[in-house]
Formats: sequence, structure tokens, C-alpha cells
Amino acid sequence: AAEAGGREMAAWARAVRGLLLDISGVLYDSGGDGGVPIAGSVDAVRRIKASGLKLRFCTNETQATREKFVKKLQGMGFDISVAEVTAPAPAACRILKERSLRPHLLVHNDLVPEFAEIDKANPNCVVIGDAAENFTYANLNEAFRLLIGMEKPVLISLGRGRYYKETDGLKLDVGAYMKALEYACDVQAEVVGKPAKMFFESALAEMGVPPQQAIMIGDDIENDVGGAQRCGMRALQVRTGKYRSVHSLHP
Amino acid sequence: AAEAGGREMAAWARAVRGLLLDISGVLYDSGGDGGVPIAGSVDAVRRIKASGLKLRFCTNETQATREKFVKKLQGMGFDISVAEVTAPAPAACRILKERSLRPHLLVHNDLVPEFAEIDKANPNCVVIGDAAENFTYANLNEAFRLLIGMEKPVLISLGRGRYYKETDGLKLDVGAYMKALEYACDVQAEVVGKPAKMFFESALAEMGVPPQQAIMIGDDIENDVGGAQRCGMRALQVRTGKYRSVHSLHP
Repeated sequence: AAEAGGREMAAWARAVRGLLLDISGVLYDSGGDGGVPIAGSVDAVRRIKASGLKLRFCTNETQATREKFVKKLQGMGFDISVAEVTAPAPAACRILKERSLRPHLLVHNDLVPEFAEIDKANPNCVVIGDAAENFTYANLNEAFRLLIGMEKPVLISLGRGRYYKETDGLKLDVGAYMKALEYACDVQAEVVGKPAKMFFESALAEMGVPPQQAIMIGDDIENDVGGAQRCGMRALQVRTGKYRSVHSLHP
Repeated sequence: AAEAGGREMAAWARAVRGLLLDISGVLYDSGGDGGVPIAGSVDAVRRIKASGLKLRFCTNETQATREKFVKKLQGMGFDISVAEVTAPAPAACRILKERSLRPHLLVHNDLVPEFAEIDKANPNCVVIGDAAENFTYANLNEAFRLLIGMEKPVLISLGRGRYYKETDGLKLDVGAYMKALEYACDVQAEVVGKPAKMFFESALAEMGVPPQQAIMIGDDIENDVGGAQRCGMRALQVRTGKYRSVHSLHP
């Protein structure tokens, strides 16, 4: 049986044709100082590309435009381009256009340019991202009042992460604030980004690899690993980023 | 049958011996300017007291000490004293002492004196109230980090309201922020205040009236009406405060 298992595993490994890589917590640790690359990760990206495997970066990053984010990573030495990155904001823009939604944005200042071509007058939905310092009491009340005033409140959340690690410690992620608005307005947010199935599917389509032949690599057991598995992919959890073993979970 | 129903109702009305009155949204509308009394409410309190009915004020107010809050209401003309008010902070202090919990406080500055006699060194729980302007990104991250760092995170929430009405509009209440921390830390908050059964029971005990002979009057269908009913009381929802008819719910 062990031998059969080994053969199966080897057959599966040979079948792998594409990798989806999370960025924050896998390639680098973010932070107010711009963050630092995780040891070995610049070289790992280079080796994956040299191996002939297809590679796509699949991130829930919403603190900057893809352009700015990619430039930062290139500055750290990563071989990465904007066209290789699947991120929530462009996916949200497609949905907003399709459904004629005019968003009120509760997002990071640096993400706003991603919505440049979207009509934002007289909003009929709220889009929430990892707004960081923009998560003020006043801004949350404003988003809440708009939502509760809508005939049919629509809340779109760019990811639903609980928290993430920056160089100076753990920070609440967009999911916590999404929950606050969901509860106050008695609505359910529509999540754009990991772990939404549609998000992984579009990343796979962009890479041209079916789920059975792809692996997702991330540091988040829910958004990276769980989401990818529900999509029919295999997934690996790295022990960097927010990863904490059961023992270190409550230090 | 209608006649029997009428007789039943009349018998019940004769049996009523005590009233629990919510304050914000029932007696006055709060606001940055101190708020304004709701028309007729000063007189209503006077008449209830003159009628011989027992009366107790049952509030989730946590933006001020009971002393300061009562002084404000007295200034508006209400016949009210500190001893007549059941509020979350004193109830929380009893729990903290009983269980040797040392709180980190995420509350309004004006509520802090209620916790003067509580040991707050090296916190082993977080107490969250309606912190209003203190609900900053930095303060929420701080409370989150303390909670997630605890071996067994304990989150005590002073009420679980969704929102309330101030003179300048609707504001997110403590419940929204409680949900954010619950989600981020995967814990369930212990609610002190309405709609917790124990909170109504202590108000009834202080008034010396059993639930079957008491009515709760409030503007919140969940925290006032639902909570009181689950406690065996009858309840009335006023149409002031945050009350919104089905038609006006989504203007």
C-alpha cells in the first residue's frame, strides 16, 4: 500500500504544471518600511521559472495598485511583472462594471487608482479593502450609513482575511472590518479575492492550467489552502508569514 | 374569544408592578452636544413614579460613568438617581472581580473611572464598550494583539448593539467592533448588558419584581424587546430613537 501511495504521489508530482504563489508572508513580510524578502524566496521564484513550470502570483494585497506593488517586489530582486499577478481590485472592477455598481470606497489611499475608470457618483454599493490607517471611526460610520441607507445593501469585500503579519507585528485585516459592517447592516458581503472559488479559477485560467495540475502555496490555512482545495487544487502551507504552530499559537 | 382576550389583557395590566425603561432613544436622543430629551418623556417618568409602579432604568450606555450620565439626564429635567440605573460597567466589574480577570479596556475615556478599583496590570482579558472616537485603527490592533496572545482569549463586551442614533445621525455601536475582534481571534465574546438574561434578572432583582409582573420599554427590537421576552417579561418597542418602520428602513 505504501508503495502504491508512493507511485501515486510521484505520478501526481509529474502531472503538476503550474504553481500559484501567495506573496505576503510567502515571498516577503510586509511592513511600514516597505517590508523585507523572506530568506530564499527571490531565488525560489527564479528556480521555479527556470524549471519550466507555469507560475502566477495570487494575492489578496489591496494596500497598493498592482503597478506599485510589483515595483516594490522587483526592487527586492523578485522576477515578477504586473501581468503575472491576480489581485482583488481588478477583479472587483470587472464585477462593478458588469452589474452597473457605483462604489463608495473604504480602501487604502494607494489602491484608489485601480478604480480610476469606475463611476463613483451617488454610490449604490460599498467596496471594502485593507484600508489600514483609513479604518477610522469616522470612515467606518460613513460606510455604515451609506450601506444601511441602501434599498438593497451591497457590500463587496476585497478578501476576508482575519489578520496578517507586518514587520512590527500582527494587524487586523479587512475581514474583521467586513464582519463589523455585515453585523451592523445585517448583510452578507460578497468576497472578491481568496478564498473565493471564482478568484482561483480566474488565476488558473490566466495561467492556462486545470486545477488538478496546479498547486497553491500560501501561509493562510483558510484563504490559501482551504480556498484552493475547494477549487480542486492541491495546496501547501509555508511556515513563514502568519503561520504559527499549535504550540506558538498562544505564546 | 375576543372578550376572553380582553379580560386576560386587563388582568395582566393589573398585575404589572414594575417598569424597566431604556434611556437612549426612549428618554432622549444622544449626541455630541449632550443630546436632547424626547418630547413627553420627562413628564412620563414623573407620572410613572407618581402612579406607584416600581421603575428602574436599564441601559447599555457605556460612554460615561453612571454618575456623569445621570447628572446629564437630571439637567434635562428627568427624575432619576444613580441608584435607579442598571448599566453594563458595574456588572462587568463584578464579573472581573469574581473571576480574577485583569482587563485591557477598549472603552470611552469617560467610562474608565467605573473600573478604578480593578487591577489592570498584565491583562488577561479585553473589555470592549462603545469606545466611539477611541475605536481607532491603532487601538483595535492593540486589543486584537493582546487577545490573540492570550492562552485562552477572554473578550467581554458591554452590550452587543449594532448601531444607535445620535443627533447627527446613526453610529456603529460596540457590537460591530465586538464582531470584528471575535472574527479575528476566533473567540466568542461574553456579553454583559442587554440582551443578556443575567442583566435583566439583576435589574428585576434590584427592583424586587418578578419577570411576569414587569414590562421592558425600549427602542431596540433585539436588545430591549427580544432580551426581555427571553427573560419572561413583556416588552414594548417605542417608535423613537433608532426605531424605523419597514417602510422607512431603507429610505
